[in-house]
Amino acid sequence: MTARGFPEEEYRARTLRAQAMMAEQGLAGLLLTTEPEIRYLTGFLTRFWESPTRPWHLVVPAAGDPVAVIPGIGAELMGRTWVPDIRTWSAPAPGDDGVSLLIDTLRELAPGTVGVPMGHETRLGLPLADFRRLEAAGIAFADATALVQRLHRVKSEAEIEKIREICAIGGRAFARVPEIARAGVPLADVFRRFQGALLAEGADWVPYVAGAAAPGGYGDVISPADERPLAAGDVLMLDTGALRDGYFCDYDRNWAIGQAGPDTVAAHARLWEATEAGIAAARPGATAADVHRAMADLLPGEGNVGRMGHGLGMRLTEWPSLMPGDGTVLEPGMVITLEPGFAFAPGRMLVHEEDIVIRERGAELLTPRAPRDLPVIG
Amino acid sequence: MTARGFPEEEYRARTLRAQAMMAEQGLAGLLLTTEPEIRYLTGFLTRFWESPTRPWHLVVPAAGDPVAVIPGIGAELMGRTWVPDIRTWSAPAPGDDGVSLLIDTLRELAPGTVGVPMGHETRLGLPLADFRRLEAAGIAFADATALVQRLHRVKSEAEIEKIREICAIGGRAFARVPEIARAGVPLADVFRRFQGALLAEGADWVPYVAGAAAPGGYGDVISPADERPLAAGDVLMLDTGALRDGYFCDYDRNWAIGQAGPDTVAAHARLWEATEAGIAAARPGATAADVHRAMADLLPGEGNVGRMGHGLGMRLTEWPSLMPGDGTVLEPGMVITLEPGFAFAPGRMLVHEEDIVIRERGAELLTPRAPRDLPVIG
Repeated sequence: MTARGFPEEEYRARTLRAQAMMAEQGLAGLLLTTEPEIRYLTGFLTRFWESPTRPWHLVVPAAGDPVAVIPGIGAELMGRTWVPDIRTWSAPAPGDDGVSLLIDTLRELAPGTVGVPMGHETRLGLPLADFRRLEAAGIAFADATALVQRLHRVKSEAEIEKIREICAIGGRAFARVPEIARAGVPLADVFRRFQGALLAEGADWVPYVAGAAAPGGYGDVISPADERPLAAGDVLMLDTGALRDGYFCDYDRNWAIGQAGPDTVAAHARLWEATEAGIAAARPGATAADVHRAMADLLPGEGNVGRMGHGLGMRLTEWPSLMPGDGTVLEPGMVITLEPGFAFAPGRMLVHEEDIVIRERGAELLTPRAPRDLPVIG
Repeated sequence: MTARGFPEEEYRARTLRAQAMMAEQGLAGLLLTTEPEIRYLTGFLTRFWESPTRPWHLVVPAAGDPVAVIPGIGAELMGRTWVPDIRTWSAPAPGDDGVSLLIDTLRELAPGTVGVPMGHETRLGLPLADFRRLEAAGIAFADATALVQRLHRVKSEAEIEKIREICAIGGRAFARVPEIARAGVPLADVFRRFQGALLAEGADWVPYVAGAAAPGGYGDVISPADERPLAAGDVLMLDTGALRDGYFCDYDRNWAIGQAGPDTVAAHARLWEATEAGIAAARPGATAADVHRAMADLLPGEGNVGRMGHGLGMRLTEWPSLMPGDGTVLEPGMVITLEPGFAFAPGRMLVHEEDIVIRERGAELLTPRAPRDLPVIG
């Protein structure tokens, strides 16, 4: 297993890259309020974000180290990161939950326009009313979505190693599914035992599991498990976003329970071929739309998922999207998922997913490649 | 185990309660954009919220059924809920990610001021720039934080049963910790195996685990696990927010590894007594601040956590906060955690937590009560 976290130099280099982009955009500072944005520059890793009560902020000045403006409950953990200046208040404080401390900090460290991600795929990590109080205090904000996208898009070798590690953990857990799933076992139990296998194989936690089991193909890919027992003829799909040291894998596998009809077997092989085409197309210089087209050309329609893959890293899903119109040019070091899917009969869909990193010479698989032929359990 | 979900009447009754509060506030509609807000009125349960790519919306008109405005990928799952009117677009669509569909829906169904939660402990579930587009289109918004807080605060008996069930699952997992933790086992392995125990005992998933292990007490309660092996004299604390059918438990337990010093043993007993005082004080008519004071009066200071408990339900932490100044009056059916903690020496803190429901005659424990005497493992 790789060591946890990153050396301080990596956080410093990321901060300098952010500051270079800030200078290009004429930003006096950057306000970051979400988990991956703050962790990327600090290494602050906690599951405490599950609680929406307290807002967390990182202020990146035009030059110099970032400053954390956070609830007191996080001071000890933030104190173990490289961030030297940690400003806290006693939260929760409904009347002024860090707002005046944040205003003071922004006025001191970022006199001018402050970037905040407010575009596609971003969220604000503090309540809207509190953000409005910052604006009412005279702080001017500009959209920093493109900046943050550029910042996170190309992964360092250390980041790629972490993603490779969690992909390998996922692979070992998928290999144990034939021990877990068989006709008669409720899907909810399969989910539970699959998550247990991910943990036993080395995942730190399992934020995402979805899947389905239905005769000859499934109708939807985001459902939680129900208590229906698996039955012969079902296709079981399990999709997981598991984490190790804060980095995600995101891929799925399909199995036939007992037997599969010829159309299901053919659909699986077709998806596998589409993924091969995606792997071949995913080279530096190609766009996200090019990779989508390479896969979509081999499939008759694509169901309701809206895209055929996406960026991957500290989030389960990152930009770009493999879809028509996404002109993001692939660069070495980008990590993406290839996720072709299609409905081959009414209510019967199959989806397949692998994770790759873009290298100078083409795609490198981070996931153990699925078999072309739909595996049969039992 | 209880049946999953709720009967349609429960969702209808919740919607009517929301609409009565909307009428009081003069709202023509309510726009909900976060997981618990949408699930509360629809039953739409998925882990897909882990992906920040696509925004989800529910529009509640002044009268009539709620309308879902969601990405196509969710149509099948939303179609299994009671919500009759489901409007979808093909997401992601960076140029117009449901915004114009949402504007049309709000104009049609909520002509007038639209409530949106924007205050303490709330977040906006769509990008800020998209929210601004709604405003630019002439939709007038008002804060609906208090409305949503009132709506979720008192749990139905069916909700309380779900919380009781996940608390019991947590209790069985905590009972297995002596099989998992002993001197020499890295804390990261303890976390992993504890999560496995929660799943094996019936949790659907485990969004939150925190904890610590340090000599004679710990310095912080939100850290992830490190690879340091447990050692004799450590106090191990594990805190979990696990879910079953979308409802959380949130409580912790402490153990001494091998042995404990007299100050640690005394601190644990003192916390247990403080919790007893909290249980006794948590009666209808008392305020959140009263319950805090009952516990704080027995403790010398309270560390950096900022409060001594909070609401619990579909979120790991809900309003109110047990802290000075929170005048929320307890009512039968409210579920809260009691979470006293204090630092009894520099860098040595203990925290304890139980979950209760307020009944007419006083507090009813939902968690199996911790022992007064710090249990020793090994």
